[in-house]
Amino acid sequence: MKKNLFYLCLFLIISSCKTDLNGNLTKVSTLEELNTAINNAKPGDQIVLANGTYKDAEIKFTGEGKDGEPITLKAETPGKVFIEGESSLEISGNYLEVNGLFFRNGHSPKANVIAFRTNEKDVANHSKVTNCVILDFNNLERDQDNLWVQLYGKHNELSNCYIAGKTNGGPTVRVDLKGNQSIRNYHKIINNHFGPRPRKGGARGETIQLGSSFTSMSPSNTLIANNLFEECNGEVEIISSKTNFNIIKNNVFYKSEGSVVTRHGNYVAVDGNYFIGDGENDQYGGIRIINTGHWVTNNLFYKIKGKNFRSPIAIMNGIPKSPLNRYNQVTDVVVAYNTFVDSDSPWQFGVGTNISQADVLPPSEIRSARPLRTEVVNNVIYNSKGDPNPIIEHDKADGVTFASNIIDNNGVEIKNSYGLISKELTLTDIGTDLSVPTSGFDDVEEYNGFDFETITEDLLGNSRSKSNQIGAILNVENINLNLLDKSKYGADWYSNEVEAKEPITHTVSNASELVAKLQEAESGDIIDLSFGVFTIDESLIIDKSITIKSSGDGKAQIIFSGKENTPLFQLSPYGKLTLKQVILEGNNSNYAFASLKKNMSNHFGLNVSECEISNFNYVLRVYKQAFSEEITFKNTSIADCENGIELSEETNDRGDYNTEYLTIDNCNFNNVKQNVVDYYRGGYDESTIGGNLLITNSTFTNCGEKEKNKRLFNHNGIVNVNINNNTFKNNKVQFVSILWGAKNNVESNNTIINSGEIKTEENLVMTLMY
Amino acid sequence: MKKNLFYLCLFLIISSCKTDLNGNLTKVSTLEELNTAINNAKPGDQIVLANGTYKDAEIKFTGEGKDGEPITLKAETPGKVFIEGESSLEISGNYLEVNGLFFRNGHSPKANVIAFRTNEKDVANHSKVTNCVILDFNNLERDQDNLWVQLYGKHNELSNCYIAGKTNGGPTVRVDLKGNQSIRNYHKIINNHFGPRPRKGGARGETIQLGSSFTSMSPSNTLIANNLFEECNGEVEIISSKTNFNIIKNNVFYKSEGSVVTRHGNYVAVDGNYFIGDGENDQYGGIRIINTGHWVTNNLFYKIKGKNFRSPIAIMNGIPKSPLNRYNQVTDVVVAYNTFVDSDSPWQFGVGTNISQADVLPPSEIRSARPLRTEVVNNVIYNSKGDPNPIIEHDKADGVTFASNIIDNNGVEIKNSYGLISKELTLTDIGTDLSVPTSGFDDVEEYNGFDFETITEDLLGNSRSKSNQIGAILNVENINLNLLDKSKYGADWYSNEVEAKEPITHTVSNASELVAKLQEAESGDIIDLSFGVFTIDESLIIDKSITIKSSGDGKAQIIFSGKENTPLFQLSPYGKLTLKQVILEGNNSNYAFASLKKNMSNHFGLNVSECEISNFNYVLRVYKQAFSEEITFKNTSIADCENGIELSEETNDRGDYNTEYLTIDNCNFNNVKQNVVDYYRGGYDESTIGGNLLITNSTFTNCGEKEKNKRLFNHNGIVNVNINNNTFKNNKVQFVSILWGAKNNVESNNTIINSGEIKTEENLVMTLMY
Repeated sequence: MKKNLFYLCLFLIISSCKTDLNGNLTKVSTLEELNTAINNAKPGDQIVLANGTYKDAEIKFTGEGKDGEPITLKAETPGKVFIEGESSLEISGNYLEVNGLFFRNGHSPKANVIAFRTNEKDVANHSKVTNCVILDFNNLERDQDNLWVQLYGKHNELSNCYIAGKTNGGPTVRVDLKGNQSIRNYHKIINNHFGPRPRKGGARGETIQLGSSFTSMSPSNTLIANNLFEECNGEVEIISSKTNFNIIKNNVFYKSEGSVVTRHGNYVAVDGNYFIGDGENDQYGGIRIINTGHWVTNNLFYKIKGKNFRSPIAIMNGIPKSPLNRYNQVTDVVVAYNTFVDSDSPWQFGVGTNISQADVLPPSEIRSARPLRTEVVNNVIYNSKGDPNPIIEHDKADGVTFASNIIDNNGVEIKNSYGLISKELTLTDIGTDLSVPTSGFDDVEEYNGFDFETITEDLLGNSRSKSNQIGAILNVENINLNLLDKSKYGADWYSNEVEAKEPITHTVSNASELVAKLQEAESGDIIDLSFGVFTIDESLIIDKSITIKSSGDGKAQIIFSGKENTPLFQLSPYGKLTLKQVILEGNNSNYAFASLKKNMSNHFGLNVSECEISNFNYVLRVYKQAFSEEITFKNTSIADCENGIELSEETNDRGDYNTEYLTIDNCNFNNVKQNVVDYYRGGYDESTIGGNLLITNSTFTNCGEKEKNKRLFNHNGIVNVNINNNTFKNNKVQFVSILWGAKNNVESNNTIINSGEIKTEENLVMTLMY
Repeated sequence: MKKNLFYLCLFLIISSCKTDLNGNLTKVSTLEELNTAINNAKPGDQIVLANGTYKDAEIKFTGEGKDGEPITLKAETPGKVFIEGESSLEISGNYLEVNGLFFRNGHSPKANVIAFRTNEKDVANHSKVTNCVILDFNNLERDQDNLWVQLYGKHNELSNCYIAGKTNGGPTVRVDLKGNQSIRNYHKIINNHFGPRPRKGGARGETIQLGSSFTSMSPSNTLIANNLFEECNGEVEIISSKTNFNIIKNNVFYKSEGSVVTRHGNYVAVDGNYFIGDGENDQYGGIRIINTGHWVTNNLFYKIKGKNFRSPIAIMNGIPKSPLNRYNQVTDVVVAYNTFVDSDSPWQFGVGTNISQADVLPPSEIRSARPLRTEVVNNVIYNSKGDPNPIIEHDKADGVTFASNIIDNNGVEIKNSYGLISKELTLTDIGTDLSVPTSGFDDVEEYNGFDFETITEDLLGNSRSKSNQIGAILNVENINLNLLDKSKYGADWYSNEVEAKEPITHTVSNASELVAKLQEAESGDIIDLSFGVFTIDESLIIDKSITIKSSGDGKAQIIFSGKENTPLFQLSPYGKLTLKQVILEGNNSNYAFASLKKNMSNHFGLNVSECEISNFNYVLRVYKQAFSEEITFKNTSIADCENGIELSEETNDRGDYNTEYLTIDNCNFNNVKQNVVDYYRGGYDESTIGGNLLITNSTFTNCGEKEKNKRLFNHNGIVNVNINNNTFKNNKVQFVSILWGAKNNVESNNTIINSGEIKTEENLVMTLMY
């Protein structure tokens, strides 16, 4: 008997190690060895990349594995194999697997960092990239669009990867469907951690894009499941589904400034996802719906404050007989069994209607086709602070069936209820700081729509067959989710959680110390300037997060004697400067702050407060393709400069701009001759909603006399502009500002003395982007 | 043992008769009884309609049958139950079957004759209409569009029906996909005989339409198989596929003036069909391709002479970013394993390109997007008379892969061969008067495209797995098809083959005999007029096929003294008049020929030869909504009339017109003051190709003096115009004709004396139809 057991065990061991026993393991440590190993690989073989850094590695991994016997290319130790410099990975063949690589400190010389093909004909099938990391692998310029991962072929998988930090144009991940070899692909994008993608400033910043409008008629059947999307803020679309029959399921969208959008294509299932906001940031969105046949079921929206295009459920108006790349009408859509907690105006219809813009847009741009044959049923809304408008009709929702929806609005009356049933509900703690109503409505009979018997489970996977009820979550005991446990997503060897580091303060008392310490300091450190004058003659490079401030009671003064058209502070990639209580003085021909003229491969930042700035040619000059998430001037005076704050070089009219937020608060501008505030966005795009200009509590005197277009502020194309509580005195301009009425451009409480006027134009004539 | 056998037999009998034994059989003979029976029907029940005629029967057949136990509504004797008058059939529920009904002598008061739903919500599923006939069940007016059979719901079947004679607007059969209850329908339209559908004159005359552009994003999965399409001449599209994943398989398209068109929607399989022409009629077409992902395989094209839009394989140019209802680009299409015998220029690319019309059409109408990623491979072409242009590029075919195609061009050099391999082939008789090359090319290696392993069979269902070869038909012994055996299609109790009847000649010698005999005569008969004068004071009703001619040597004369604006010959539905060797004289205020002013529920026809016509207000006046396939005047003189041939009332600009062919051959027009020839088509449609005007060998003298627009001939919008070998003398007009250069308008060998000129305008400014 013991002997038998031994043989059984042996058999089991051999069986379970089949791959290892059958295949060869080849360890390689150079690219040449790697290529040789790839060329020789047979089904079941493993190629092991020795730990180390591989620079300028353009890896082509081709081969023919078999089902159960893949050819594997893996790191000796996952996370200890670094792909750097000008590097890329291309894969084609069948049953190939890549495991454990770390792409960092570089960028791809090609259109992709990882491509599931090696040329137009040769694609990968049944292959996967797993347990890898791609971090900040950005092209040198924002306008050099690329895709970090592009899937071609069929039945491929991107799983358990951590991917973050893309700042250049182009979706992070895209599924390509051009050619019959890539349709009905059944790709899986699962268990990944999509870490922060900073705001890009304009379009082309999606985290995942499934196809394009040109392949929007193709069946894709891609699955995006069980991923964590964390701070995916690239643009308004986190996932842009542009093909048919995709499934977006059980993902967590955490503090991500965008929406899941069924942009093109049809019959997409968006089922069982978590959209988690903070109850404050109104950029966090939900699901925006365009086209036909989508099913939005079992989703939870928690403290989502996105409005209009970013509202939890945004059902758009279409363009009648829409062009292929625009907006088809919404028809045959089902929105059922979802739960909305403390999410503002969660149901919005006719989003994007622009009938009023018929004067400035061609007929083929007018979104007037309202949703048809659409059902919004069996949903639950809970508002701890009542919402008078849970349903907003930008255009009539007369093609929508509402039934069996309930609301606890905490006593606040609803203007437009469409049959919402009022209830008093209690909340259940389900973990992850989520409190959700799961009971108190079992007396409401569910609306039974066509094919609703296919909605077999709730958000947590519990069966709806026995005691079904409306809303995303059935009433079961002891729910304790741990959605934000990051170890559940991404590469098992990588965490994006960094330990907080105590900043070091470096005190400097003369110019050369300042230069030396600035170089020496680590990101996050502080440089204290002793009281006195620092004369600087070459630009100070800002390429990390750094704070420079006066140490004591009086303000230190920096006099910049550098060459004309060079900046005192050279804002470089990753350079985030906080400047406090400092006097800056130029020689009238040089600049206070400027970005690099090129190769701004990552974003910069600028926060200036309690400073005095004078005698510069430019206060701030931001060049094309440079981008900052935030630029702030606060409690600061700016005087006797030829140019002020200049962010107007994104003139290619692709919808780009140079900063997401530009804030001027309690500042004093005096004798700034032109470009006092010049912030430009060219190219009309109805869905993106930046930039943001706030000018408040400030005074502008004797400014703008050289401004050719006679406007003190130029902010053409910026979507959100707020000018309030300022005083304008003796500025030689015709207009303080011309506001864009159709967008969110507003002014209030300004005092204008001998400074022209603030005018509002409802519609701006702009270049269409597409 | 015997006993056991007995019980076994009993068991088998009971099993096989399960339905009959379980269900009730209810015989009904009134609509009231029918309704009661329907209300009471249980799964397995049969409702038998007693033989007889049911007038104005609006039947609603609702019920819940079961799989294997349908509720059946059937004729007592198939074909002996007539549904007439204002009648319709609507079906909803599950597992319902209708069998053996004959719809004739009437029309539907509703939008459909047969609808697979009873209202917007209640559709039929798993239901069928089989073994029925719908014949000439036309609405009273051509413009009263309807659909004879409309399928809704899922898994329904239209089988073994004979359907013919639709003359009013609207497809004969349509599958509707509005609403999730009707997508992925898997309907079967099988084994039917679609008999002659006369030319409609303009659009909206399809035999089958699958969805519409508004549902063109929906999966349909409809199967159209094993049907015979005979003389389906309604318009340019016989089958208009407008949805996705349809299968069109093993059908016979016999002498049908149109094409199978993948008009909207994508991924349609057109496999194993027979397109059979006569080698002469250039209206018989093949397959016209628009959109993405279609597979055209295993089809045989035999003596198909269609050109351009109707060519055997017509691959269109698309509109870049096309509007929903226009032309998407062709991408990812496969045309493989087809055989073309004596079919002119079978492969045409860039069909519909209209870059040259950029001046008269908006940009959203310009078809400039050439096919992409398209494969034309493994095909065989045989031309017994060589064709110098088997491939025509209306625009470049640079996105098309050509490979492994062969041709036997009988020695004629090919200008543009794209790698066609020349061979000498022999033909094999495969029955049905078809001789096809099936051998002689097994040395040509097949091109192996992506997924080509799914092309498992040839046109005849023989496996390609063992000895595959290019072309539609594998080289097997003793093929003897009997494709045109009509007993294989349609209702088993109905044949459209009529025995030739010997016409009866009725001789009449005075007016009252003429009136009496005309009424008495049967369709096809001849009325011989004795030499002499017939004075007629009321219109003669022509409502059948009739020939009226002079019996002897001299021409009889008919003097019409009827009221003003009434015609001598009242051309009524089904009225086809052949008039020969007769003199017609009016009173200057009445008409020689006219259609009905309304209720022209079927087409008329007119053929006038060797006649002399004078002193009418109108020679021919055709009112709106009246249509004739052919109107011919030959060897006839027309003199001293206020108006000539007037067919210009189709002014709604929907692309309609009043006759398909208008021919004036060897005629003599003298002193016809206006509307000499006035033939109008309004509404631009790029794909339809009528009407047809031929004016040849004729003389026009002193005509047109009252014509307001100073043109002798008005034929605005008529696509085919040929004016040749005529003499024009002293006609007081500015233009004899203004030809439409972009379409097929030509003139030659005309002599023009003091009669203005013939001018050609390349592009006509017209109303767009859609």
